[in-house]
Amino acid sequence: MITVSIDAMGGDFGPAVVIPGAATSLERHPDLRFAIFGQEDMVLPHLDRHPALRAASDFVHCDIAVKMDDKPSQALRHGRWKSSMWKSIEAVKTGAADVCVSAGNTGALMAMSKFCLRTMADIERPAIAAIWPTLRGESIVLDVGATIGADAQQLVDFSVMGAAMARALIEVKKPTVGLLNVGVEEIKGQEEVKEAGRLLRQAGLSTLDYRGFVEGDDLGKGTVDVVVTEGFSGNIALKTAEGTARQIAEYLRAAMGRTLTARIGYLLARGAFNRLRDKMDPRKVNGGVFLGLNGIVIKSHGGTDAEGFSAAVDVGYDMVRNSLLSKIDTDLRYFHGRRSAQHAEAGQPVARAGQKK
Amino acid sequence: MITVSIDAMGGDFGPAVVIPGAATSLERHPDLRFAIFGQEDMVLPHLDRHPALRAASDFVHCDIAVKMDDKPSQALRHGRWKSSMWKSIEAVKTGAADVCVSAGNTGALMAMSKFCLRTMADIERPAIAAIWPTLRGESIVLDVGATIGADAQQLVDFSVMGAAMARALIEVKKPTVGLLNVGVEEIKGQEEVKEAGRLLRQAGLSTLDYRGFVEGDDLGKGTVDVVVTEGFSGNIALKTAEGTARQIAEYLRAAMGRTLTARIGYLLARGAFNRLRDKMDPRKVNGGVFLGLNGIVIKSHGGTDAEGFSAAVDVGYDMVRNSLLSKIDTDLRYFHGRRSAQHAEAGQPVARAGQKK
Repeated sequence: MITVSIDAMGGDFGPAVVIPGAATSLERHPDLRFAIFGQEDMVLPHLDRHPALRAASDFVHCDIAVKMDDKPSQALRHGRWKSSMWKSIEAVKTGAADVCVSAGNTGALMAMSKFCLRTMADIERPAIAAIWPTLRGESIVLDVGATIGADAQQLVDFSVMGAAMARALIEVKKPTVGLLNVGVEEIKGQEEVKEAGRLLRQAGLSTLDYRGFVEGDDLGKGTVDVVVTEGFSGNIALKTAEGTARQIAEYLRAAMGRTLTARIGYLLARGAFNRLRDKMDPRKVNGGVFLGLNGIVIKSHGGTDAEGFSAAVDVGYDMVRNSLLSKIDTDLRYFHGRRSAQHAEAGQPVARAGQKK
Repeated sequence: MITVSIDAMGGDFGPAVVIPGAATSLERHPDLRFAIFGQEDMVLPHLDRHPALRAASDFVHCDIAVKMDDKPSQALRHGRWKSSMWKSIEAVKTGAADVCVSAGNTGALMAMSKFCLRTMADIERPAIAAIWPTLRGESIVLDVGATIGADAQQLVDFSVMGAAMARALIEVKKPTVGLLNVGVEEIKGQEEVKEAGRLLRQAGLSTLDYRGFVEGDDLGKGTVDVVVTEGFSGNIALKTAEGTARQIAEYLRAAMGRTLTARIGYLLARGAFNRLRDKMDPRKVNGGVFLGLNGIVIKSHGGTDAEGFSAAVDVGYDMVRNSLLSKIDTDLRYFHGRRSAQHAEAGQPVARAGQKK
């Protein structure tokens, strides 16, 4: 049995999308249980329409809902201890739930998650990992926007966490990992990226297969299972890909409506177009995963529909079933343990030791 | 009459692509003249097949060709003063040509261009500007890989240069300019980007209309005419978009070949598909433009065909015809002049004064 805590008030449509989304996930995974947080008068009418979900859920009323345009500091001030967002995160901390899913605003959700769950030992900053559809299947890309800039050690930590997620989610034994970089010979990347590459090579980890640098066009190819970068370029890559996909869909729509023959052709090829739409459907891979906290929090896209929200719940389900958190914990301990040992041998101080509990 | 100097040895296919490409451009623009540099025995056989181009060209034999995988330092060591790449750049310096086009390797071309042409007064580092197809038409995006990281002043200089290029190329009077940033509330961008935004607002330039921050998905939408960012994220955005376009084309091809009805539909809608392919054709917007040097150098994609190389030549032609270089020069002088005056009034030292001649 896996329990998912749900912030029913999150997203552009709140419970109208969240509740049917949860109901869909329950149909797919009958061993799911839910802890649902939100405003009674808004949530219960929707919940009553899904008796199976109602029976599989604990509902807790919360007066406060974090708004989609609240700044993180505002959200913390008004919503800490009592908002539906906070309560759903807290359920993971207390053990009442295994994973939290919210379509609420990213900044607020990250700020509250950090405040409530705290970062794992050895991890300085959490990351947001995206599931990226590729020509080979799916890859994990992180960080797509939790932080700006990252030093070499943080990039290595992202690699370890991303590889653990790949093992949990796309079920590869030793995921291949690449560091996102630029290909121009003259300059070849930021110092931090080069240093992270050296560290990963030296580490010789058994949990991941470091493959060197990759470039922006390797994302869609699926050249590696895990692509690691800092949050600024990761966020720009993610949104550029989304924008390009929408742009091409728009071109395609315009081209297909232009002549009668094209319209007939479109009708005949409709099945193929639907399959294409399926492939490109951002709802199918909905769910940014916060990694590096003492608990798993899934961020669903704010503007998604019930199908999309359900996909985010399913991601949470898979991660718990495949013990993501303990995988990350073990891998990080192993890595940082080895590192400490190496440094002790060499008589060097261990960087960042004691900096974070 | 506009003279284009051509490095005939550049690119994956050398003169076999470069020469027919130049010939195509000449057909479109009969007022073009060419200065062609390369190895006699390899270039002349191709040139002989295009008598009109032959008549409109000066050919200069060069023993040395820069290789596609030469490091910039190697290229400078072996190819300075004498390679076809160097000679074609030098023709711009001496005034023998108005613009240089090469499909040679980017790092070497940039290193030689900087060495030969030098950066403009007030400009610390050149940028590579790409022409980006959007839903609204075309935008200019820079820097896509000349440098890594940029301070606020450099981002402002990129904005001024990009706007001048937009005025020369897409013929808007007062181009809209946006700084590429991430949208996550909590962090909202690098300090340099925020500072550049403040500088652009304060400057109140008459040559551009600063519109604030844009995100990755605004690139495809064409939200602004000029998108400014530093070279690391710019390069990643460019390659991610290219990769995504190829990925979707691949999905489409697979979907359309799957069933007989889909194949018939495809045949009927073929005209529409061709239009789409046209829209997505990277050859149509081939040509990264080096900005910030005392001369214009166009980098054509190394793997392009004759049609693509011709597009790069056409970009060069348009830029010269629309006086790009003097536009940039005037705008930069105006901007830096105003800045000096403001600082003098305020009794502050002028940053970077005298740092570059």
